[in-house]
Amino acid sequence: MSPENVKVLLFDTFGTISDWRGSIARKGQRLARDKGIENVDWEAFARAWRAGYKPGMARVQSGERPWTPIDVIHRERLDEIIAEFGMDDALDESERQAMNLWWHQLDPWPDSIPGLTRLKTGFMIAPLSNGSLILLTAMAKRAGLPWDFIFSSDTFKGYKRDAIVYQGAIGLLGLEPGEVMMCAAHNDDLAAARSHGMRTAYINRPYEYGADQNRDFEADEAWDVIGETVEDIAAALGV
Amino acid sequence: MSPENVKVLLFDTFGTISDWRGSIARKGQRLARDKGIENVDWEAFARAWRAGYKPGMARVQSGERPWTPIDVIHRERLDEIIAEFGMDDALDESERQAMNLWWHQLDPWPDSIPGLTRLKTGFMIAPLSNGSLILLTAMAKRAGLPWDFIFSSDTFKGYKRDAIVYQGAIGLLGLEPGEVMMCAAHNDDLAAARSHGMRTAYINRPYEYGADQNRDFEADEAWDVIGETVEDIAAALGV
Repeated sequence: MSPENVKVLLFDTFGTISDWRGSIARKGQRLARDKGIENVDWEAFARAWRAGYKPGMARVQSGERPWTPIDVIHRERLDEIIAEFGMDDALDESERQAMNLWWHQLDPWPDSIPGLTRLKTGFMIAPLSNGSLILLTAMAKRAGLPWDFIFSSDTFKGYKRDAIVYQGAIGLLGLEPGEVMMCAAHNDDLAAARSHGMRTAYINRPYEYGADQNRDFEADEAWDVIGETVEDIAAALGV
Repeated sequence: MSPENVKVLLFDTFGTISDWRGSIARKGQRLARDKGIENVDWEAFARAWRAGYKPGMARVQSGERPWTPIDVIHRERLDEIIAEFGMDDALDESERQAMNLWWHQLDPWPDSIPGLTRLKTGFMIAPLSNGSLILLTAMAKRAGLPWDFIFSSDTFKGYKRDAIVYQGAIGLLGLEPGEVMMCAAHNDDLAAARSHGMRTAYINRPYEYGADQNRDFEADEAWDVIGETVEDIAAALGV
């Protein structure tokens, strides 16, 4: 590709930049140790929590439900799975509120900060995520993600893959679609971005979902850039 | 004040964080040297450019004109003053486009980066500025302003002191108004923020406008925090 026209790189965050599965499982294991909770598979808990994410957004996207921030969707699903995993009596309201903030404290993949730090020297970099502004800002401050600005689902009152998110991002930047590159580990996110004229970069994260992963083991289309890490994207873009 | 509830600090940028007058004048002097332009008072040119800012926004705020990004308002005023200063034949279209980007390249006041760097350790920090997203991002990258995120006029499709800007900021953060502090060198900006329940910090910039300054020589009200520099605000907030 010829990257010379690309000015802004927008990143999916959950799964592409951050390892939500490992982060949530580690926090669960720590909580279990502190509270004396036994016999919970926290890997499975993390995957079960995440499994409520797309259905929760889908109800908003279909119009069945008005705009609902992701933190609310996370919390509703949390209450469901706490019951499913038999912890209803073990975890009170304040503990549940603290658990919901685990999504604000996700650890990045090992290559994310080195890669973003390089990319920041040549491009404006930002998340374009289904997270909320406060979630993404808190995550970045804690982990040291060097974003130039933050695009969140509440910026556009929409969730990917809704057109309003991509069109809103391009419009708010005041750029041509081809000057903006979507970077993600999810082929359907890139397909949506491409349909709006954006450039695309695929970062392969075949272990994102662990046992639940059933797609995105490789690039499904000839995206503009394809790599295994964020650092690969930096190398391909010449920074 | 008791700052313990404040989570986010939002900053006016032009004049509060950045020295637009000195920056524009220095760039003009350099351009004049390169182009052999003589007898232009670039201090006066900078002030004349800025003098078109409030009237330009006022036409949008009154509804006379639909939403118009600040870069367009800057450009329209630039063409006016290039003529007024007798440079219509000296500056072509590409040079005017480059000049309009001077607003993307403003230098900070000497205390801005030290102060923001301290404040970032204890709070989320962002501009809440009439600048555009791309302007504020470019300015931050060039100058090294360590924002956590960026709120621009185009985020809310409004200019300060319109209610939509303050209400939009509080709403997008999902916080209580008292958890957000507006920091500015302009008393009327703080008065607007206070009217929406926000906390307030005044940073005195009595030299912002130079010869044209006719207000904001000191705090007009008992703002929550009052200082001469951003570092004073950091000290008052205990970081």
